[in-house]
Amino acid sequence: MVSKTKNKKVVVVGGGTGTFVVLTALRDYSVELSAVVSMADSGGSTGRLRDQYGVLPPGDIRRALVALSDTSQTLRSLFNYRFSSGDLRGHNFGNIFLSALEKMTGNFSSAIKVASKILNIKGNVIPVTLNNTMLYAQLASGVIIKGEANIDIPKFDPTIPIKKVWLEPLARINPEATRAILAADMIVIGPGDLFTSVVPNLLVGGVAAAIKRSKAKKVYVCNLMTKFGETHGFKAQDFIDTIEKYLGRGILDYAVFNNKKPSALVLERYLKENSHFVETSGLRNNARKTKFISANLLDVGNFVRHNPKKKLAKVLISLLN
Amino acid sequence: MVSKTKNKKVVVVGGGTGTFVVLTALRDYSVELSAVVSMADSGGSTGRLRDQYGVLPPGDIRRALVALSDTSQTLRSLFNYRFSSGDLRGHNFGNIFLSALEKMTGNFSSAIKVASKILNIKGNVIPVTLNNTMLYAQLASGVIIKGEANIDIPKFDPTIPIKKVWLEPLARINPEATRAILAADMIVIGPGDLFTSVVPNLLVGGVAAAIKRSKAKKVYVCNLMTKFGETHGFKAQDFIDTIEKYLGRGILDYAVFNNKKPSALVLERYLKENSHFVETSGLRNNARKTKFISANLLDVGNFVRHNPKKKLAKVLISLLN
Repeated sequence: MVSKTKNKKVVVVGGGTGTFVVLTALRDYSVELSAVVSMADSGGSTGRLRDQYGVLPPGDIRRALVALSDTSQTLRSLFNYRFSSGDLRGHNFGNIFLSALEKMTGNFSSAIKVASKILNIKGNVIPVTLNNTMLYAQLASGVIIKGEANIDIPKFDPTIPIKKVWLEPLARINPEATRAILAADMIVIGPGDLFTSVVPNLLVGGVAAAIKRSKAKKVYVCNLMTKFGETHGFKAQDFIDTIEKYLGRGILDYAVFNNKKPSALVLERYLKENSHFVETSGLRNNARKTKFISANLLDVGNFVRHNPKKKLAKVLISLLN
Repeated sequence: MVSKTKNKKVVVVGGGTGTFVVLTALRDYSVELSAVVSMADSGGSTGRLRDQYGVLPPGDIRRALVALSDTSQTLRSLFNYRFSSGDLRGHNFGNIFLSALEKMTGNFSSAIKVASKILNIKGNVIPVTLNNTMLYAQLASGVIIKGEANIDIPKFDPTIPIKKVWLEPLARINPEATRAILAADMIVIGPGDLFTSVVPNLLVGGVAAAIKRSKAKKVYVCNLMTKFGETHGFKAQDFIDTIEKYLGRGILDYAVFNNKKPSALVLERYLKENSHFVETSGLRNNARKTKFISANLLDVGNFVRHNPKKKLAKVLISLLN
């Protein structure tokens, strides 16, 4: 749409619904989109497929593929279709698709290529690593939790903050991800579950270094709401501090925050899940080079999410030009 | 290849591997191919999907789609890929694909259309009926067997011949099948499991009438081997008699038989499954208008099957011209 953005390359780093929102935001612009996607997911259908078939986690890849797909609504819906009963209960068609192809070809990347062709995707979906690895978290209490799914659905006291996260075994960056990051004009990190979707990318050996080396503008998009067991009690400052802890200081050019509070009615529903609005009060960028951008990014509706096309896209595209 | 056959329309009626062979035989010729496929399958992955999701049987449709597919070997193999363990154990990817789409859209025909597009099929794959129905068999002893899978894998004395087969509830022909049959230049019935793949098409209300009404040349291709529990002790004469029992007398223009016996070594292996060579001795077409064609149709190899491209195709194409 905007001719100045023609052919500019944007890499979105994350996983889950946050990345879906950013990809949806940018897909109508004339930019070359790549999604670098976390491989830490171990819950639900994805977790069972990993356990039973030894495959890489398909769920986040599937979401990114659907976000970038330019095909019939039927086919896009099929990839997200979830069986609610029977042998296939809880499994998602797109996950089955990717796992069957990976089992058959022994190659996750070529499975993604086949799916990309069928879904006619505009852009690239790239697993951050091709190593089969597991996310671990240590809480401030010392307790160690194994597996993304167990961090996400905490069995321990979810008010105890996460002290650190890491991958075991160590994982190396997918060379395709390196190439995309180095060639990018803009890298967008987040939003998404901080410790289970966004940071796991930065834990992969070579990712932070590639981002640092890239001449791209580097942008962090902060979450709108906290997540119990993961970012409970976090303010905007804690989000950016965590990202910098794993990415390195002074690397981000921009951090984008939402300053519009959802309605009391909507917030009340989120309270049931102990999820709170991320406050930007007290935000200080001190001597950092990072420019903080505070804007109304809120979507109208029952869910607290970034408005992709009207609000988030405008901010990101303005930073790109 | 043969210019005279250009644009001629061939409809193959059957199901299972027999239909796969005929489609494979004819796909390299310049003919418009349609497969009218039995909907009686109730075993294995297909049976479980039918039971658990209330869908129409996808297995035979999948085989016909793959036979007509003009796409990468990867995608064709994917549709036939079978999970050997885990939640998806025994399920076939192509079956899952068709069933997910049918569940999602509520429409088996449109599921086939979507799969046809993805697999880039040359021709049409048409379920003989869109009614959800079940195959029954009554043995000569009076015993009634419910379900294709139970006839196929007999629990009763497999030497007792099948007296008759029928569908419950009654099924009506898919209008798309009527159109294909009426527009055909040639209709090829069989080969394939006689009572569980071929005849079930003729049990669908309107099929025999449409074939009779069609101006097409009507050809029956007889099986090479008998099947225990289904056609035990059958000679070629019994096959053609059974087809005529359900199709009607004097409708077939040609019946094609193989006269080349496999090697003793190969036959010995089939003996373990009580499967015998179909003898053409004593074959009489009496006052029938049907012309009997006896030829060497045997493929070279460990399996007794029709040689599709070199032998079967030549006979069928010669009848078409």
